[in-house]
Amino acid sequence: MKILVLNCGSSSIKYALYDMDSKTVMTSGGAERVGLDGAFVKVKLANGKKKQIMHDIPEHTEGVKFIFSLLTDPEIGVIKNLKEIDAVGHRMVHGGEKFNKSVVLTDEVLKVFEECNDLAPLHNPANLKGVNAVTELMPGLPQVGVFDTAFHQTMPDYAYMYAIPYELYEKYGIRRYGFHGTSHRYVSKRVCDFLGVNPEEKKVITCHIGNGGSVAAVKYGKCMDTSMGLTPLEGVMMGTRSGDIDGGAVSFIQKKLNLDADGISNLLNKKSGVFGITGISSDMREIDAAAEAGDKKAVLALNMYNYRIKKYIGAYAAAMGGADIIVMTAGVGENQASMRAEVCKDMEWMGIKIDKEKNEAIHGEEAIISTEDSKVTVVVIPTDEELMIATDTMNLL
Amino acid sequence: MKILVLNCGSSSIKYALYDMDSKTVMTSGGAERVGLDGAFVKVKLANGKKKQIMHDIPEHTEGVKFIFSLLTDPEIGVIKNLKEIDAVGHRMVHGGEKFNKSVVLTDEVLKVFEECNDLAPLHNPANLKGVNAVTELMPGLPQVGVFDTAFHQTMPDYAYMYAIPYELYEKYGIRRYGFHGTSHRYVSKRVCDFLGVNPEEKKVITCHIGNGGSVAAVKYGKCMDTSMGLTPLEGVMMGTRSGDIDGGAVSFIQKKLNLDADGISNLLNKKSGVFGITGISSDMREIDAAAEAGDKKAVLALNMYNYRIKKYIGAYAAAMGGADIIVMTAGVGENQASMRAEVCKDMEWMGIKIDKEKNEAIHGEEAIISTEDSKVTVVVIPTDEELMIATDTMNLL
Repeated sequence: MKILVLNCGSSSIKYALYDMDSKTVMTSGGAERVGLDGAFVKVKLANGKKKQIMHDIPEHTEGVKFIFSLLTDPEIGVIKNLKEIDAVGHRMVHGGEKFNKSVVLTDEVLKVFEECNDLAPLHNPANLKGVNAVTELMPGLPQVGVFDTAFHQTMPDYAYMYAIPYELYEKYGIRRYGFHGTSHRYVSKRVCDFLGVNPEEKKVITCHIGNGGSVAAVKYGKCMDTSMGLTPLEGVMMGTRSGDIDGGAVSFIQKKLNLDADGISNLLNKKSGVFGITGISSDMREIDAAAEAGDKKAVLALNMYNYRIKKYIGAYAAAMGGADIIVMTAGVGENQASMRAEVCKDMEWMGIKIDKEKNEAIHGEEAIISTEDSKVTVVVIPTDEELMIATDTMNLL
Repeated sequence: MKILVLNCGSSSIKYALYDMDSKTVMTSGGAERVGLDGAFVKVKLANGKKKQIMHDIPEHTEGVKFIFSLLTDPEIGVIKNLKEIDAVGHRMVHGGEKFNKSVVLTDEVLKVFEECNDLAPLHNPANLKGVNAVTELMPGLPQVGVFDTAFHQTMPDYAYMYAIPYELYEKYGIRRYGFHGTSHRYVSKRVCDFLGVNPEEKKVITCHIGNGGSVAAVKYGKCMDTSMGLTPLEGVMMGTRSGDIDGGAVSFIQKKLNLDADGISNLLNKKSGVFGITGISSDMREIDAAAEAGDKKAVLALNMYNYRIKKYIGAYAAAMGGADIIVMTAGVGENQASMRAEVCKDMEWMGIKIDKEKNEAIHGEEAIISTEDSKVTVVVIPTDEELMIATDTMNLL
């Protein structure tokens, strides 16, 4: 069975074609600058080689069409005929309270999904464009939606409600939804397979730390809290997002800088976080290098970054009545040993003991990085949202 | 030595006259509706009786003058001559980064304090009015300022910085300051005296839970983090304040309700929290009663309220590398056993074991409420900010 995974953003389309018999990626890549000048597609071939192709992509249907043509391209393609594709799985951002699991995309389902547009006005319409493009180009091909928010729908009300007038929840759906759900679901399950334990008996804290980042409390296989909220701004410090901030500071900044709601949202989402503190970069590798070279703001940014993740680990252990397993995943979580070491430092009080050498040796591979006598097992698990989307898609057919 | 403690708000003046030899309150009370119609003063006499006196108070000097007259009143007064007062200690709200301890108020100091007005535009000018009123009525009487923010000035930068553009800190002082500092200082020290331990060897989490609420991490006698931020909005759920909320939700609500910065600030500070969720009250006693009567929103509010305090306890244990002592104080913390029980429930993983019977028996008195074999000692300590202000004032003279 061959499944195409699509992740359509407002100006990008990422894709991966999976052979589900071997669970391997046949080819992957992404169109960038969709709708803008200078659009191009990057392709990663099965042999690991990469190729970049300039191609005009005025809108999503043209982008999907071009990606289809690359899949069957005599030179760099991996299939002979598009009919070899059995289904398409879409990453969908905001399912609101409407979707607590992946679903086959029917007209009815898409209508319900559109009702969630309001909660993700940039992302949801782009996701929908991808679905419509596939429908137009390959009518009848089964499509499945996998929602970033779905895994978090098991949160209890006391974890997802904000302490604001109740009618704001009723009228506008203002509450915590959480994101990166597909990743948290994947790694929280995968870590239990890896350790040979039953997820329904374990309290797992999953740290998805990349350019965007979120932490989740997964108790007995179900999410019970997560750090991102109504929007992906809340929670840990991110590349350009502030993470947690005093709501009073939000209006204070607005008044000082004379910003309207969009203005402050832009500042907190795009100009803050690691980039805002350092003025250098949103990339933790560059910040690490700058800190080593003695840059004080880079040192501060690293300290803030790690401290906030550490506090979430304590908070979520409290939320679940303890923790058995901590998972580190995504770009920074999988690769930055210094972050993992700092976050787990002085955490013996809750049973965390990191194995310094193991931790330093691990980059992007599944491995336990805690000591054998650590009560809490700390594990690196590379995330694989695409595989999860492909798997959900296969299972629904 | 007799010390008068004053706490001047924008429309209120609270006072207490201390006999520092016996550390007792000779009389206390407060003017309310200062500057408004229907102003009155409540007086609590030494014998415990209360009296309410209507009196026109167009502004603070008149209010302080009237309070002075009550102190020497032949019938309800407690001193013969104002000259018996040795000094006045003022509760001052926002000392910014300028004050890390209490100080004698000189013209120079007051000028520096005024520079912090911007950070607390409602509170600081009112505090200042109280100081000026005393200067006018009793020139030369020593006055001391005790700042709500001072105790928290020992926080490390990675705890007090927000992940926003660094220049917003430099230009406008936007950072976490924390409040209730005098209370956190008092109870974190007092609990160690009570237990007969050395504060410099203990990791203490102080939960000041009243209509406003904040939690602080006090490591070896110094504050290293606290839940209130630039403003008193951040942190745990409060009577009418939201506490922690996604910054993205703030701008989302603004757009939905067409609110400007002042409008959203008003909504989050005055119409949210326990009151916002329940629509019933901001008073936890009423919410408790409503929950017992089966009101679902009251149950939700209680669950949210307790859950958020619990998460802060976990987070601050992580921040300090563990916790030895947890203090419950202020109106709810001292009196609401159900809150304390819920917050400490399922916390054995970090060494907290509550003694159910002891906990239920304790209201407003110093007592250990954890079991004898609890690794973390949980203690109720009634707060006494006024005594702390009087003590600081005495010590500075």
